[in-house]
Amino acid sequence: MKLTCEKYLLQSAVAVSTRAAASKSPIPTLEGILLEAGEDLRVTGYDLKKGIYTNIEAEVSEPGSVVLDAKLFGEMVRKMPDGIVSIVTDSQNMTTVKCGKSEFSFMGMDSGEYPELPSVDGLKTYTINQGVLKSMINQSIFAVSDNDARPVYTGSMFEVENGILTLVSVDGYRLALRREAIEGPAEHNEFIVPGAALSDLERISAPDSEETVRISVGGNHVSFTVGKTVIVSRRLEGDFLNYKKALPEVFKLQIKVNRSEILRATDRVVLIVDEKTKNPVRMTFNEGFIDFRCTTPIGKAEDVCFCEGNGEGMEIGFNGKYLMDALKAAPADELIVCLNTSSSPCVILPADGSDKFKFMILPIRLRA
Amino acid sequence: MKLTCEKYLLQSAVAVSTRAAASKSPIPTLEGILLEAGEDLRVTGYDLKKGIYTNIEAEVSEPGSVVLDAKLFGEMVRKMPDGIVSIVTDSQNMTTVKCGKSEFSFMGMDSGEYPELPSVDGLKTYTINQGVLKSMINQSIFAVSDNDARPVYTGSMFEVENGILTLVSVDGYRLALRREAIEGPAEHNEFIVPGAALSDLERISAPDSEETVRISVGGNHVSFTVGKTVIVSRRLEGDFLNYKKALPEVFKLQIKVNRSEILRATDRVVLIVDEKTKNPVRMTFNEGFIDFRCTTPIGKAEDVCFCEGNGEGMEIGFNGKYLMDALKAAPADELIVCLNTSSSPCVILPADGSDKFKFMILPIRLRA
Repeated sequence: MKLTCEKYLLQSAVAVSTRAAASKSPIPTLEGILLEAGEDLRVTGYDLKKGIYTNIEAEVSEPGSVVLDAKLFGEMVRKMPDGIVSIVTDSQNMTTVKCGKSEFSFMGMDSGEYPELPSVDGLKTYTINQGVLKSMINQSIFAVSDNDARPVYTGSMFEVENGILTLVSVDGYRLALRREAIEGPAEHNEFIVPGAALSDLERISAPDSEETVRISVGGNHVSFTVGKTVIVSRRLEGDFLNYKKALPEVFKLQIKVNRSEILRATDRVVLIVDEKTKNPVRMTFNEGFIDFRCTTPIGKAEDVCFCEGNGEGMEIGFNGKYLMDALKAAPADELIVCLNTSSSPCVILPADGSDKFKFMILPIRLRA
Repeated sequence: MKLTCEKYLLQSAVAVSTRAAASKSPIPTLEGILLEAGEDLRVTGYDLKKGIYTNIEAEVSEPGSVVLDAKLFGEMVRKMPDGIVSIVTDSQNMTTVKCGKSEFSFMGMDSGEYPELPSVDGLKTYTINQGVLKSMINQSIFAVSDNDARPVYTGSMFEVENGILTLVSVDGYRLALRREAIEGPAEHNEFIVPGAALSDLERISAPDSEETVRISVGGNHVSFTVGKTVIVSRRLEGDFLNYKKALPEVFKLQIKVNRSEILRATDRVVLIVDEKTKNPVRMTFNEGFIDFRCTTPIGKAEDVCFCEGNGEGMEIGFNGKYLMDALKAAPADELIVCLNTSSSPCVILPADGSDKFKFMILPIRLRA
């Protein structure tokens, strides 16, 4: 293999694909990134669960491929002076990387031992604005389960219907739903994408980009194309919660709150929560204000947050962290907190009446 | 104890004094900070080696004292709404902290169990510009030893003579010296301050402040007064290196280099250095350029840096990290690298001829 390319293009391709390289693996090549030089240069990272590759322009004088240690090669390229980088790999995989007066020689690994990325037999293809999808992931991924006991919940469900994408994450204690318009086949489709792939997708996507992400959904895999970069992930199998049934529709009480006010009050009272006993935050919904109280082995905390509406004195207890996560993620300044009883789920909605998000949290039983 | 004070004053006092609180200690009060209310409020952190205290304005309606968990109280104050904080401690040390609608109650600890800070029997007092002392510490502390075998080298020596402060750190492999004017008694004085106290002092000091630091040197302790904050530390005892003898004065070769160029070349070749074998970076000083070479089990690296002067082909090996530390710290754009032989110490000086800093590094023997 013999090629030259722009340092800054190579640097960003290596940084992006390294996200998918394994940090520790019994298969040494998986700790590397694969360089494949043909018409251009493809840089790939893959940990058997998900892969990321990106193509960059290169002057290839001798096609070929090699696997290079991801961390070492990444640092090397990052620290090189700006300019044109030349990469030469001999038949023994000895690789020489040069830029200006800097030169490194080190052993690469045989690309023949690099596992092949799954091909996505692209049956259905959707497109959605990059910044929008980024925000949807960012604002719902907190509810993805980190417990491997039910693997299906370590991912988020993508439900597409009539030009609307609904993204749902759920971990048994709470649920997060985000909804936006999407382009693609109108008929109903559902697939579950691992949280790890979604967090990479979220990081790779630009917040304010008007560019679209192309989502290709195959039988076992799904791919996301962001500019010249592609993330390929297996789909998660299994029965996902029927979120439509799980989310209550009718509420006895609907209380309007300012997001940052309720967030600050919660943030303060949870200070006193004991990491071990995870004591609940007790909220009392009165007319015009919500009382927060928390008593733990550490001490007592009390706070107050103004609200619009009358809570009729209803008392309800929450895991403070779950409440914080939902309040932090909610993309609206004004929220509606919907309640039925002290022992039934609480739903948080945007106050503007849109259906962009719905966050549900199960309460914790309070001792009298 | 009963008092009110401005939240932002309390917040910064707690943040600063917490630096000296012990993170884990068999004496529980040392993990806390001491509040003492008299004419004003004094906030103290102390880990038996060093203490930091600061006084802030407070309306004290009932003098007294209490020790509060440093982490919890710090977070509490930080998250409180802006305004006036009230702190009330009863005779059982039950403490209530209030601000606006927020209220916390929790157990404090008995201030009687808090060890008394050593008093500095201030024999000699010096003053120096805050930003200047900050830079002196910042640019020499890297050479302080982290090895407890010779405790005296875990600190930096302050040598004062004829209005000049010389700060010297040395760890057996390298030496860093910084020198600036200071005000105070003219006669010779020397004292050794633990590196831990100096790094707190460095962090507390403002970089561009024209305010002075007052240094009071007692028989066993030294204190640094920065604005309303005082750091008290024990002095380290023992024989410190005679740096005047250790630093060579005459050199066979003096090579002028641009700091950022030589830093970047070194930064690249050390990439290939194996953490375990710590292979040396081989530098060859030629006429007009320095060759860098490094061969390790990982691979080979080569680089070039331009210079002024003729090195006559001298080859010398360095621990790349030590070279990097000195080059990063050096407060000058142009440096002189002074050499005698491949096996004698290298000294790095500012090219402008000043004596503001001298960094010495011992070479590593190279295999042929």
